[in-house]
Amino acid sequence: MNGSSVLVVEDEALILLDIQSALEEAGFLVVAANSAALAIEAFDADPQSFKALISDIRLGSGKTGWEVARHLRQANSALPVIYISGDSDIHWGAEGVPGSVMIAKPFAVVQVITALSTLLNQHVPASPPPSQN
Amino acid sequence: MNGSSVLVVEDEALILLDIQSALEEAGFLVVAANSAALAIEAFDADPQSFKALISDIRLGSGKTGWEVARHLRQANSALPVIYISGDSDIHWGAEGVPGSVMIAKPFAVVQVITALSTLLNQHVPASPPPSQN
Amino acid sequence: MNGSSVLVVEDEALILLDIQSALEEAGFLVVAANSAALAIEAFDADPQSFKALISDIRLGSGKTGWEVARHLRQANSALPVIYISGDSDIHWGAEGVPGSVMIAKPFAVVQVITALSTLLNQHVPASPPPSQN
Amino acid sequence: MNGSSVLVVEDEALILLDIQSALEEAGFLVVAANSAALAIEAFDADPQSFKALISDIRLGSGKTGWEVARHLRQANSALPVIYISGDSDIHWGAEGVPGSVMIAKPFAVVQVITALSTLLNQHVPASPPPSQN
Amino acid sequence: MNGSSVLVVEDEALILLDIQSALEEAGFLVVAANSAALAIEAFDADPQSFKALISDIRLGSGKTGWEVARHLRQANSALPVIYISGDSDIHWGAEGVPGSVMIAKPFAVVQVITALSTLLNQHVPASPPPSQN
Amino acid sequence: MNGSSVLVVEDEALILLDIQSALEEAGFLVVAANSAALAIEAFDADPQSFKALISDIRLGSGKTGWEVARHLRQANSALPVIYISGDSDIHWGAEGVPGSVMIAKPFAVVQVITALSTLLNQHVPASPPPSQN
Repeated sequence: MNGSSVLVVEDEALILLDIQSALEEAGFLVVAANSAALAIEAFDADPQSFKALISDIRLGSGKTGWEVARHLRQANSALPVIYISGDSDIHWGAEGVPGSVMIAKPFAVVQVITALSTLLNQHVPASPPPSQN
Repeated sequence: MNGSSVLVVEDEALILLDIQSALEEAGFLVVAANSAALAIEAFDADPQSFKALISDIRLGSGKTGWEVARHLRQANSALPVIYISGDSDIHWGAEGVPGSVMIAKPFAVVQVITALSTLLNQHVPASPPPSQN
Repeated sequence: MNGSSVLVVEDEALILLDIQSALEEAGFLVVAANSAALAIEAFDADPQSFKALISDIRLGSGKTGWEVARHLRQANSALPVIYISGDSDIHWGAEGVPGSVMIAKPFAVVQVITALSTLLNQHVPASPPPSQN
Repeated sequence: MNGSSVLVVEDEALILLDIQSALEEAGFLVVAANSAALAIEAFDADPQSFKALISDIRLGSGKTGWEVARHLRQANSALPVIYISGDSDIHWGAEGVPGSVMIAKPFAVVQVITALSTLLNQHVPASPPPSQN
Repeated sequence: MNGSSVLVVEDEALILLDIQSALEEAGFLVVAANSAALAIEAFDADPQSFKALISDIRLGSGKTGWEVARHLRQANSALPVIYISGDSDIHWGAEGVPGSVMIAKPFAVVQVITALSTLLNQHVPASPPPSQN
Repeated sequence: MNGSSVLVVEDEALILLDIQSALEEAGFLVVAANSAALAIEAFDADPQSFKALISDIRLGSGKTGWEVARHLRQANSALPVIYISGDSDIHWGAEGVPGSVMIAKPFAVVQVITALSTLLNQHVPASPPPSQN
């Protein structure tokens, strides 16, 4: 129900690999995408299978990380979202989604793992159907 | 969907009246109960109609405020909860529910209104069904 | 430097008046606008004079409250933002800006005042120029 | 145990009166002081009787609001502290105490009441002696 | 005074070992218990020696994780508490203690370490006896 | 702009080395200083190159960690600050700076890394110059 995979979107191959390796070593399942189009395609194929999004802002041509996050939040309004950026962090206040985290480059990968763990741990479980218990 | 009424449970008539008056003057609809049994009866009759609980801890014979809150949270796991107490606040760490607020007597009624407003404003809306928007 | 006025945008005249009166009675200066276009015009004429935005989501034809907030945050990325909505709150996760508050109708006006006060009080002052003090 | 009075320190008589009146109308007991020396004297005479400090930064000759807050926190390390200032807010990051709130002038008095209520409501009760319950 | 050990309660041996190994590798002292009875016995023998509780909810016959946490919070009302559960997370709103964290299975062990570190770092030191300093 | 190095101040050589090694392994650049004087000298030579301070409280003769933090916050009022201490944590409420974290000895180094990552991730980007975007 919470999904099992973390979707990572980054068009620079080396940074994508770095984040993917670190997350997998920390015990997370990762779906890596090097473009917005591939990320959205993977998500739309099975929205329930994802538990978080980590996205760069500038993703070459096509949609930006801001747009990827909004698309995913349409389907899952509480999906944890982490943005990574070298120069777009000043636009986070206008373009980010509520409850998201912005990590400015250069960053240590442990910052991404800490942000991801913290957002997952804050995830409030949904209300159960009424009961008398 | 968020409910419209605030349930206030307090067995001291004057304090109950004080809180009820202040909340109504501030624009809230209030259902007042002077015992745990009446509070639970009112809630169970229509759980969807309540948006928050404000409860004293010691309520004479019958259930305590701790038990009233747990009963309501079984039906609505994210219901805002505010406890008021003169001498039971030291047990909040063991008996309170997550995300609740404990206000120690003596208190100014504006503390109750601020706690209620803050908890209602933090209420994260539920996720909509998936869409392509 | 923090601005002095609160910009309130709401296309229903009675609700706009209610909020404006309550804020003014509480000691705030208010600029009221009944359309997105008027709100943006007022803001763009003097961005420095505003300290917060309170906006309904559906504003008739023209821009939505989501778009008004993003426009203002382009100029002031830390501007406190409060949304008010009867049926659009489920889209807050996708369309809201970071750090904003969503208040669902029906609400008590004191919730708006509490949200506004809380956001203004959280406003971290900017760093001063380096000194040896 | 939590104390019953709020200590307000402000050397401008009119502002002091404004805050005192608003707090009393909201149901708080207030001890008003128009200098740092008087504030510290009142506090040291009975530290247990105070539940919060609200202080201007510049207080004429003598100690500043920064120093008053540190003095009080020596005796009560969790005392809620609210600073008010026209031009010293940029030094809050260096001179303020942890968990304090800085409110920049000009402000609406409701901001002070909201900050005070919020800090008092966050006050975590002390641990009780071990029991088997 | 803060205690030195983390108490981990989990009736599935492999998961218990996983968590214990990861915590010890991260530098924490761990006391592992595979039942509620053993956990409570260990705690009651020396409550001051523990700094946090990590507990599964379903623990076979005997008490649940909810009950273990309440028992420990009776003796130490601010003890950091982390729950782990595969299917009981929907009851956290009713059965959890204030300030606790719920981590839903499946999880990465780094989420537990992040939650533990964060709760320990938030631990506000107790007030010292009054001094003139 | 955010700086690239973390300044660590600790007069016990072994603890300093432990923290430095762990931070570097986690991907951070570290400037290590074994006295307040060296720390301040390094910072003042290039304030823009630092992104955070981690400091012990007792640093032998000379300034304390409290004073080091205040000195750095004069130049950068939002600099993330983490204190480490064996016996001075009870003074944090009086001597600490706003938004800082106090970690009591003994601690696991992962607590320092989590606190550092969390504070860096909370760093709100500065407002950009007004634009029409």
